[in-house]
Amino acid sequence: MLPQWIIEKKRDGGALTAADMGFFVGGYARGAIPNYQMSALLMAIAIRGMTLQETIFLTRAMLASGIIIDLSSVRRPKIDKHSTGGVGDKISLVLAPLVACCNVAVPMIVGRGLGITGGTLDKLESIPGFRTRLGESEFRKIVQKCGCAIIGASERLAPADRKMYALRDVSGSVESIPLITASILSKKLAVGLDGIVFDVKCGKGAFMKDFSSAKKLAQTLVKASNLMKLQAKALITDMNQPLGTAVGNALEVDEAVMTLKGNGPADVLELTLALGTRMLLMSGRFKEKAAARSALLEKIKTGEAFEKFKLMVRLQGGNPGCLDRAPGIMRPAAVKELRASSTGYVHEIDAELIGRASLAIGAGRSRVEEKIDHAAGICCLKKIGDTVSRGEPLALLYANSRKRLELARPLARQAFKVGSDGVNQPKMIISEIT
Amino acid sequence: MLPQWIIEKKRDGGALTAADMGFFVGGYARGAIPNYQMSALLMAIAIRGMTLQETIFLTRAMLASGIIIDLSSVRRPKIDKHSTGGVGDKISLVLAPLVACCNVAVPMIVGRGLGITGGTLDKLESIPGFRTRLGESEFRKIVQKCGCAIIGASERLAPADRKMYALRDVSGSVESIPLITASILSKKLAVGLDGIVFDVKCGKGAFMKDFSSAKKLAQTLVKASNLMKLQAKALITDMNQPLGTAVGNALEVDEAVMTLKGNGPADVLELTLALGTRMLLMSGRFKEKAAARSALLEKIKTGEAFEKFKLMVRLQGGNPGCLDRAPGIMRPAAVKELRASSTGYVHEIDAELIGRASLAIGAGRSRVEEKIDHAAGICCLKKIGDTVSRGEPLALLYANSRKRLELARPLARQAFKVGSDGVNQPKMIISEIT
Repeated sequence: MLPQWIIEKKRDGGALTAADMGFFVGGYARGAIPNYQMSALLMAIAIRGMTLQETIFLTRAMLASGIIIDLSSVRRPKIDKHSTGGVGDKISLVLAPLVACCNVAVPMIVGRGLGITGGTLDKLESIPGFRTRLGESEFRKIVQKCGCAIIGASERLAPADRKMYALRDVSGSVESIPLITASILSKKLAVGLDGIVFDVKCGKGAFMKDFSSAKKLAQTLVKASNLMKLQAKALITDMNQPLGTAVGNALEVDEAVMTLKGNGPADVLELTLALGTRMLLMSGRFKEKAAARSALLEKIKTGEAFEKFKLMVRLQGGNPGCLDRAPGIMRPAAVKELRASSTGYVHEIDAELIGRASLAIGAGRSRVEEKIDHAAGICCLKKIGDTVSRGEPLALLYANSRKRLELARPLARQAFKVGSDGVNQPKMIISEIT
Repeated sequence: MLPQWIIEKKRDGGALTAADMGFFVGGYARGAIPNYQMSALLMAIAIRGMTLQETIFLTRAMLASGIIIDLSSVRRPKIDKHSTGGVGDKISLVLAPLVACCNVAVPMIVGRGLGITGGTLDKLESIPGFRTRLGESEFRKIVQKCGCAIIGASERLAPADRKMYALRDVSGSVESIPLITASILSKKLAVGLDGIVFDVKCGKGAFMKDFSSAKKLAQTLVKASNLMKLQAKALITDMNQPLGTAVGNALEVDEAVMTLKGNGPADVLELTLALGTRMLLMSGRFKEKAAARSALLEKIKTGEAFEKFKLMVRLQGGNPGCLDRAPGIMRPAAVKELRASSTGYVHEIDAELIGRASLAIGAGRSRVEEKIDHAAGICCLKKIGDTVSRGEPLALLYANSRKRLELARPLARQAFKVGSDGVNQPKMIISEIT
């Protein structure tokens, strides 16, 4: 068998077998198949697509390139949440400890930010001392003890996915639903989950700009998970405006802490509860949505959820003391207000432009190797539908460099559209896929 | 501009500009764009296709990666012939000196054999001393003096094409009409031709198996050439059975010499005259097909054509003396007859199987780096439509190794189908594209 025969089969629209995928992905992971053959296959897949069956074959081949983290000693249902990424998405920081309070384990393996999309790893690393690289046994111990842990994928976890993702990024095959699905699931399956809830973002600040592509991705993720014996559901949620108010790493940790303490933005709480109730129902710990929701709200009210977060931070090496002093785990050199130039209603806060402004201000990275400024970011003080008076602050820009502040400001200004007509708040949960 | 933006444009079915092609191909040729980005673009092109305009942009970018051989000092019309490759195709060896006898320059840059397809370079190298690697000034001098020269492409001629072809071969993008067209034309345009006649092979032993794809390639070659101010015509010719009787390097040189002396197989002569008359008409030296044909036949009859070939061989370092002793410039260790097992008519001589048998016997190479045995090969003593008696020889197998002979024999046997009904000889010239 020659690698090019498999490439040619996909080029001509054929379906690849489990053996094809095993040969190609396995060969690629151990260096026997070069990048130029893999990038040609990935392009053929991006254009020709893959059946659900092929997507599963690919996922299994990617999974087989690495280790399986055995969490069978954790005697609780293990349920995860995965977001396809957005601007201001700090939900995992709130959701993991909150759900863990209800006797459900949440072993999260998360990624870094790239482009306008933030990453949970970067956010956590703004907590002094917090370690996101743990060995498998330490990860297992913390999940066992605390009910949740949030770490980055090690080199041993689906290494084929790591190599393939880096290659797709530079060879034009990022935008492919079957490739996105296999990339996500190959990592999730390595943890032996009982179930997963997907948060598929849709809108200006998301990878999927329109509803139909978001729906297709959500359906593919759910169907492929189910066929691989993993319970799954997906919510398609709005990402036209940033989620919550804070965009930027330390700022988002502050906002997550506020939410855990019961003082978070309404949309962050709403989405956390929507995802959390589905995780609890999936776990079998609850039968009724209303009861699950009440339980989650109760864990916030009693302070248990915040204590759980502090425990996780402590077990992962971070200093939980600084969280009590919130808001403000980090302070940048300069804060600048962005003021409204007219009176009216906020019609639009373009999440992509806010994402680009946060990149410009130093809170994100355009390339994997770039460093980020954990203290930098943007707080959007208004949401779509809010009233605003001329001269009132719309947003606060936090920066450690005046140059970066000046780069970010016009982008942030352009993101806000104020009009004279009243508008409704957009719906957060657009659709549910089961 | 990032390379992946161009890849994504083609992935999504867009049309690439001259600037896109220049950036990508130029960057690739000088090593700034890696193989994995080029292979992804080539796959996107193989699947999405290219317009004629894009094909021309690509051709020009590939041409610009190398030198132009200035033959303006050769004060005769410069007309070339290019075959898409087949089994037993020794036409160039006969055609170049024959046409050069009629005051038309034939500066040929040819390739090596790969897979079942032979290469003119390998055939010529079976003549002792013959040099196929000449510098530009030596090439020019020989064309000037003799009217024809046949050499291999140097590293300086369309180097992008050389790199791209090797990459396509291992990454599944060989079968693409626009890529094939750009690859051929980028080398032909580097010689400053006045016109070219394409011999597009069609059938079992050809790259294009069916008429419709052969026609598409022929049309693309002719249209793209014309748009680039190069006169062009194409013949679509039969490649279901091998051309002539000999398949194998030294054997084919012998057959070319026989043809130049007026004793060649009818089909080799017919195709040579068909291509030659079109070259002569294109040159402007003749206005009538019949007159051109008579002139070519006359050059064979008088012995001028063979003398021209010997002159070219001598000027390129070969020993023309051994050609006078033909048939038999080389003799392999063993010759084996393949005999008919029944009486009847030859219905089929599968050119692909004969090609595979000639590979097995050592006359070809599966990979670029393999060595070939110049003396090895197969002579098909019958053509489709011929009568045959049980026990009569169908073919002779020439080998330097008994093992190779035994590998080749069943393939050669399988190639011949004998039936009891009479069948017509297939038409050699299937169609003409102008």
